[in-house]
Amino acid sequence: MAKAAGDAIGAAWDRIRGVKLHALADLFAADDARVAKLSGRIDWGEDLTAGGILFDWTKTHLDDELLGGFEELASAVDFSAARAKLLSGAKINATEGRAAEHTAPRGTGAEASVEEAQALLARMKMLVDAIHDGALGEVKHLIHIGIGGSALGPDLAVDALTRDLAKVDVHVVSNIDGVALEQAFALCDPQTTMLAVASKTFTTIETMTNAASALKWLGDNGVDDPSGRVVALTASPEKAVEWGVDETRVLPFMESVGGRYSLWSSIGFPVALGAGWDEFEAMLAGAQMVDQHFASTEGRANLPLRAAFADQYYTRVRGCQTRAVFAYDERLALFPSYLQQLEMESNGKRVTAAGEPVDGPTAPVTWGGVGTDAQHAVFQLLHQGTHLIPVDFIASIAPGDMLDPAHHRILLTNCFAQGAALMAGGNMASDGKDPARAFPGNRPSATMLCDDLDAATLGALIAFHEHRTFANAVLMGINPFDQFGVELGKKMANDIERGDAEFDASTRALLGAAGLA
Amino acid sequence: MAKAAGDAIGAAWDRIRGVKLHALADLFAADDARVAKLSGRIDWGEDLTAGGILFDWTKTHLDDELLGGFEELASAVDFSAARAKLLSGAKINATEGRAAEHTAPRGTGAEASVEEAQALLARMKMLVDAIHDGALGEVKHLIHIGIGGSALGPDLAVDALTRDLAKVDVHVVSNIDGVALEQAFALCDPQTTMLAVASKTFTTIETMTNAASALKWLGDNGVDDPSGRVVALTASPEKAVEWGVDETRVLPFMESVGGRYSLWSSIGFPVALGAGWDEFEAMLAGAQMVDQHFASTEGRANLPLRAAFADQYYTRVRGCQTRAVFAYDERLALFPSYLQQLEMESNGKRVTAAGEPVDGPTAPVTWGGVGTDAQHAVFQLLHQGTHLIPVDFIASIAPGDMLDPAHHRILLTNCFAQGAALMAGGNMASDGKDPARAFPGNRPSATMLCDDLDAATLGALIAFHEHRTFANAVLMGINPFDQFGVELGKKMANDIERGDAEFDASTRALLGAAGLA
Repeated sequence: MAKAAGDAIGAAWDRIRGVKLHALADLFAADDARVAKLSGRIDWGEDLTAGGILFDWTKTHLDDELLGGFEELASAVDFSAARAKLLSGAKINATEGRAAEHTAPRGTGAEASVEEAQALLARMKMLVDAIHDGALGEVKHLIHIGIGGSALGPDLAVDALTRDLAKVDVHVVSNIDGVALEQAFALCDPQTTMLAVASKTFTTIETMTNAASALKWLGDNGVDDPSGRVVALTASPEKAVEWGVDETRVLPFMESVGGRYSLWSSIGFPVALGAGWDEFEAMLAGAQMVDQHFASTEGRANLPLRAAFADQYYTRVRGCQTRAVFAYDERLALFPSYLQQLEMESNGKRVTAAGEPVDGPTAPVTWGGVGTDAQHAVFQLLHQGTHLIPVDFIASIAPGDMLDPAHHRILLTNCFAQGAALMAGGNMASDGKDPARAFPGNRPSATMLCDDLDAATLGALIAFHEHRTFANAVLMGINPFDQFGVELGKKMANDIERGDAEFDASTRALLGAAGLA
Repeated sequence: MAKAAGDAIGAAWDRIRGVKLHALADLFAADDARVAKLSGRIDWGEDLTAGGILFDWTKTHLDDELLGGFEELASAVDFSAARAKLLSGAKINATEGRAAEHTAPRGTGAEASVEEAQALLARMKMLVDAIHDGALGEVKHLIHIGIGGSALGPDLAVDALTRDLAKVDVHVVSNIDGVALEQAFALCDPQTTMLAVASKTFTTIETMTNAASALKWLGDNGVDDPSGRVVALTASPEKAVEWGVDETRVLPFMESVGGRYSLWSSIGFPVALGAGWDEFEAMLAGAQMVDQHFASTEGRANLPLRAAFADQYYTRVRGCQTRAVFAYDERLALFPSYLQQLEMESNGKRVTAAGEPVDGPTAPVTWGGVGTDAQHAVFQLLHQGTHLIPVDFIASIAPGDMLDPAHHRILLTNCFAQGAALMAGGNMASDGKDPARAFPGNRPSATMLCDDLDAATLGALIAFHEHRTFANAVLMGINPFDQFGVELGKKMANDIERGDAEFDASTRALLGAAGLA
């Protein structure tokens, strides 16, 4: 890193670390405009379902001084230039020599890439329409086989968007454990089941093993041409053809779309098939609304960047090793798992983009669950534990159910009450003095309040977190788009399979106990 | 705390903190007997399915010196006396003036309590048998309504034990979000559906709201006597009767069984109904095998206590704010969620049992997932992130599937390879020099290797973690059996519902945006 840039970064951090620590209650008391300053909306118009999301960061410790310090940091790392590189298709993923063009399918990016991505989607639409129209016979079930980035996004979106009505019943199978695939078999009729095989490289061992077993299951159950029931979703179309998928059912995506950012590409096929093309398209359009905000808004007003300021503050100044996310919506039950990969695989790094050791902690552990369930399981620790844990709440004003409105009202009041309680603290003993019933308060949270949890909103929520993750990476100087950390374990598993390597005494004992030595 | 005891505890911690930090590889190199010393089995005989679990703690930083220090700590806190109190039914939950007798249903504890618990189970068996025999008409589905401790255990055990064959199809519904209940409705035929309503107090708002909506659904769908389809699982049987459940279908459990420890009591009804009584009983018997080990084994040889030594070391000496658990078995997909409640609600506290502020961090955040899925999502951070995260692996030697044996073999080799890789480290670049491809290694893990994941093993795994959690609490001097931390949020939600309280400006704005102000 150039010395001048390094000095400017150090100076910004010095400024940030020098800001006096205020209690949240004092920040509210000191500034009547706090809610206006630290809440913001991203809205979309009537071409989509009208709606938007309110991003309330007021119950974090961010204040004018910290925001000023972080804006200085953003300047020092040249955040604007990094963002321009990302959104113009420059090779920002330097270690792999690639651009990161996950925004292209939703219409944001270099013109040629947007055109290419959208042409690929047009091809996918034709296949989805053909299947819905019965061109491939009756299709009631789709077993979608993929892992990591090829599974978590589709699983989240299908779960969130098809609860009321699925055009095709989708089962996402990722684990090499055969129990997972058998579970899908038990729920599908082989005569009306298609397979999607999703792998960027088309070599992922879990996916290829599961795909082979699924083909065998179709064949064993009287399907004449099992390979004819496969759709391949991949950035290596030639490998898919080689494996036996007819070219007409290979849906490629661009090499510059990273696995954990690939929901927008042909990896989203099960979403389009299950929820319908209009829903898939609305999801992309919602994401693009966030792209536009992210691309064109500067400093603290940029909501994903502002969220990253808070993230950096808690991780690097307050020493938080985790952050928690609770969706007060059953339809977002898989959102924390999705975020885990997005954030931890992107920013769980030890070196900067330049290969230097990072000079502070990188991504915290993202964890969470759904409310109100989590209140009865882990909130004890949030309120009375010893670790400071910044919490995100996500909720939808419009209900997802048609039961007694009490259900949704209680859901929302609980969501808001938890954020209020974490901040306020107090003592629940009648005399206010029992230490076991004392709550220290001053615990931070942010709330994302959606008008409605429709497809556009889901796309916007995911895109918000993609850009927040990117902003965090830029502020730390790391490359969020590689993932070399997965390689060593993979190599050692291969070493075990080949039986030609030396292992520690514990691993030898475990292999022996399992009959694998 | 008595000064002498306090001094002895301080001295033990001084000794622990004074132990020289060794790399894991050096610990292996220094001691040929390391695997023998830090691995141990809990086995059960042929009255159960013969089997057991290997607990391998060799790849943690525990060594003879640390074990000696922690044994001194265990003496200083009088671990043996605390254990004796727990297992004799003394009022160890002092803040609530209650014993903690979750071991009683499995045959461990004060004689009178064991007798009472087992009499309650005998009554539950009669009802389960009657339903299986058709005494209540055709029962194909059970919607089990409960939250927290009334949901997580049943959900885990039903998911783990009924994948091959369920006697009754069980759906666990916990969330107040009506989407959860509607999902269960969509999968059940009201004519053949029973409801279990599980709440220790029979006042939990989520559970009572969901129960009312489920009754309405039965009635709206032509079921004559919806209340006649309800089984109540509760420690407040009079409340259940008052609510409208006939006494013959109220299955009580003892007040001294805590919610998050209640799977062994009538809260286990859906497990017995879904998996069968023999499976439920085997689960209890497996748990009792661990009880016997825990009750009768001293010092470092006590496997739950040894695990707690490592937990305390990482939390209090190494500053770890999290610990991760990865089950390399799809059937244990819900195990991390179960552990989150068990550990975080029990030990996420700020004061000692005597009401003094704790003098160090308490429970870390428990998080995790299933392998191999997690390798493609969060293992990047485990291998190359900046936070030290102790990892537990759980796997079964016998496969749960009947597919090509390659599935299970690859599952196990990956599990063992990850533990080996975390410890070994290395560099994946061909010249061994690329910092982006460097792995620091020396990252700790433990492995629980089960002979088979049957009901006895599941019971043993859960009981192991109950005792490990208790041991951690004793070493920290806290009461793991209360949960006052959940009260403030509940109160504030009620305040919002009643509309008669003042809130901060952010909460007011959120309530306004949602139309709830």
